[in-house]
Amino acid sequence: MDSKIITKRVRAIRRRLSAKEIDCLIVTKPANVSYATGFLGVDSWAVITTAASYLLTDSRYVEQAQKECTCRRIIQRSGPLAQATAELLKKLKSVQTVAVEKSTALAAFEPLKKNVKAKFKTAADIVETLRSGKDGSEIAAIKKAAKIAAQALAKTLLFIKPGISESELAGMLDFQIRKLGSRTSFDTIVAFGANASRPHHQAGRRKLKQNDCLLIDFGARYNNYCCDLTRCFAAGRPSHFYETVHKTVQQAQAAALKMVKPGAVISQVDAAAREVISKSGLPVYGHGTGHGLGLEVHEEPVISANSRGKLQAGMVFTIEPGVYMPGKLGVRIEDDVLVTERGCTILTRNCPQPLLIT
Amino acid sequence: MDSKIITKRVRAIRRRLSAKEIDCLIVTKPANVSYATGFLGVDSWAVITTAASYLLTDSRYVEQAQKECTCRRIIQRSGPLAQATAELLKKLKSVQTVAVEKSTALAAFEPLKKNVKAKFKTAADIVETLRSGKDGSEIAAIKKAAKIAAQALAKTLLFIKPGISESELAGMLDFQIRKLGSRTSFDTIVAFGANASRPHHQAGRRKLKQNDCLLIDFGARYNNYCCDLTRCFAAGRPSHFYETVHKTVQQAQAAALKMVKPGAVISQVDAAAREVISKSGLPVYGHGTGHGLGLEVHEEPVISANSRGKLQAGMVFTIEPGVYMPGKLGVRIEDDVLVTERGCTILTRNCPQPLLIT
Repeated sequence: MDSKIITKRVRAIRRRLSAKEIDCLIVTKPANVSYATGFLGVDSWAVITTAASYLLTDSRYVEQAQKECTCRRIIQRSGPLAQATAELLKKLKSVQTVAVEKSTALAAFEPLKKNVKAKFKTAADIVETLRSGKDGSEIAAIKKAAKIAAQALAKTLLFIKPGISESELAGMLDFQIRKLGSRTSFDTIVAFGANASRPHHQAGRRKLKQNDCLLIDFGARYNNYCCDLTRCFAAGRPSHFYETVHKTVQQAQAAALKMVKPGAVISQVDAAAREVISKSGLPVYGHGTGHGLGLEVHEEPVISANSRGKLQAGMVFTIEPGVYMPGKLGVRIEDDVLVTERGCTILTRNCPQPLLIT
Repeated sequence: MDSKIITKRVRAIRRRLSAKEIDCLIVTKPANVSYATGFLGVDSWAVITTAASYLLTDSRYVEQAQKECTCRRIIQRSGPLAQATAELLKKLKSVQTVAVEKSTALAAFEPLKKNVKAKFKTAADIVETLRSGKDGSEIAAIKKAAKIAAQALAKTLLFIKPGISESELAGMLDFQIRKLGSRTSFDTIVAFGANASRPHHQAGRRKLKQNDCLLIDFGARYNNYCCDLTRCFAAGRPSHFYETVHKTVQQAQAAALKMVKPGAVISQVDAAAREVISKSGLPVYGHGTGHGLGLEVHEEPVISANSRGKLQAGMVFTIEPGVYMPGKLGVRIEDDVLVTERGCTILTRNCPQPLLIT
């Protein structure tokens, strides 16, 4: 990781800490630790004060941390993270106000609060908010992840034939992603037929039949940055009804994408997709229309009816409306979009999107 | 999931709540929710009172919850989990003392505490502690997972040849696991040569050379129960030093396994493995000697020098000593063991453990 990028991020974190009169931020969320230090392992915390950055890790990760981290202060702990952090803070006499990230577990927070004499403040989501605006290196990584995903899906389509199981097809797609030197960004979802009505179906033993419809929801990582996309199509001849639903979902997605530009009210982007489905008389999906993407596969911004706030250039998120009819079918179409100065760019445009394969 | 098993678990949870004078437990950890309700999805909480069990989930999981859950009270939320839980608790007039699991994030706990009038208590690790003693169905699931892992590794060994990359080999192993209808229990680790000195190395582009040594750390799931094992061997002729290290690690593992029986002091099991390595003059590993396995790949009991407590029949955990020499090599041997009434059974005994493959 380029040390200049990390330095810039840490400075931005410090500016926010200073505005809130906080001397020290304890970064506990793995993706936030990666963002603030460059370290890509887990079970490690970062401590950022006005003067320095520290990484607290254990023997499993010390070698990796020395390679990846730009911060020179790597502390190898043997006890729990909260204990090692309390010991460090005791030595940092100038630290009087400490903020702990909101994702921290009670089990870690309670001993910290007990053993550290400083005043504790809520940090809200300082790092999460920073992460929602991507820099050039982050956008490049997501683009690369999207390219890998497109290549892997294209290869996997060749293996789709009646008799293959959901689990085997998911495995084949994951294998293609690995072959391209990447990793999946989450457990690949493959659902055949009516199984697709469960938005988060777990790939199982169900075998593909002629003319079955498929839903594939998957993603690849590049430099730990995720993409996330969903494709739905038929292995053979889809029913007329399936075609109608597919077309409606595509139109819903297009309606939302049309709204994406800096300054757009996020809840209105969500509403645009829902309205198309609602007007068509099909059931409106219960999940959000999209979610941010980056070091995590679900991050800020959330694109939903409850979202407050507006889009800003540099945000990257999914747009993924769907139609789910238990016992019948499920169709979701999901692409990743970058908000640009003037509108948006679809990062997953090159991923095959067949309506049917034969 | 057999509803009798869930009923038994919920009764055991209620007995512990009653002993602590708690009216209601809010279960937030996904694996604990699965354990207490049968539901295998995520982003859902269970609320267990003296009278009833509730599952709070969202539209993505309602269909799955109806299929998997034995508790009849499934609540579909539209807002955040903490909000839906607060609304439920307002209706449950008899609830006066509430416990929240220690793994709960501050971001969820703070609004709960603010919006619920009940008295809050720390629940310690009620469900985690129960989960550390496995019942027959759980042991059967882990055994099945171990069988799948062994079959998958045996098939994958056939693909190992110079030129294959770490990432591709990891992908092939994952694919074999999927082909057997299973899923991996964590991101498969494949490390060639000196990369194995990083205990949690991430499989990358490094290609296998003749006589290279490999470390493969992987696991499969069955009914969501995990196994976790590590094999190390050479693709060709290992150096004499590698053979010596390999033998020492095997002896260290054997020494720990010999100690495993009900009543054994956990820290002494850890010490037994370390002593063998220490006496051999090789560097002693910094990580724990093992960890519990079940619905999570890392759970209670932790087998380390800091562990307090004794082993009990029904516990399932890994024994995985290692030797790590940065720039040189890494050898870890990891098997899964069940504490029986009289001693222990190694659940991963059938997984191939070659010293070399040709």
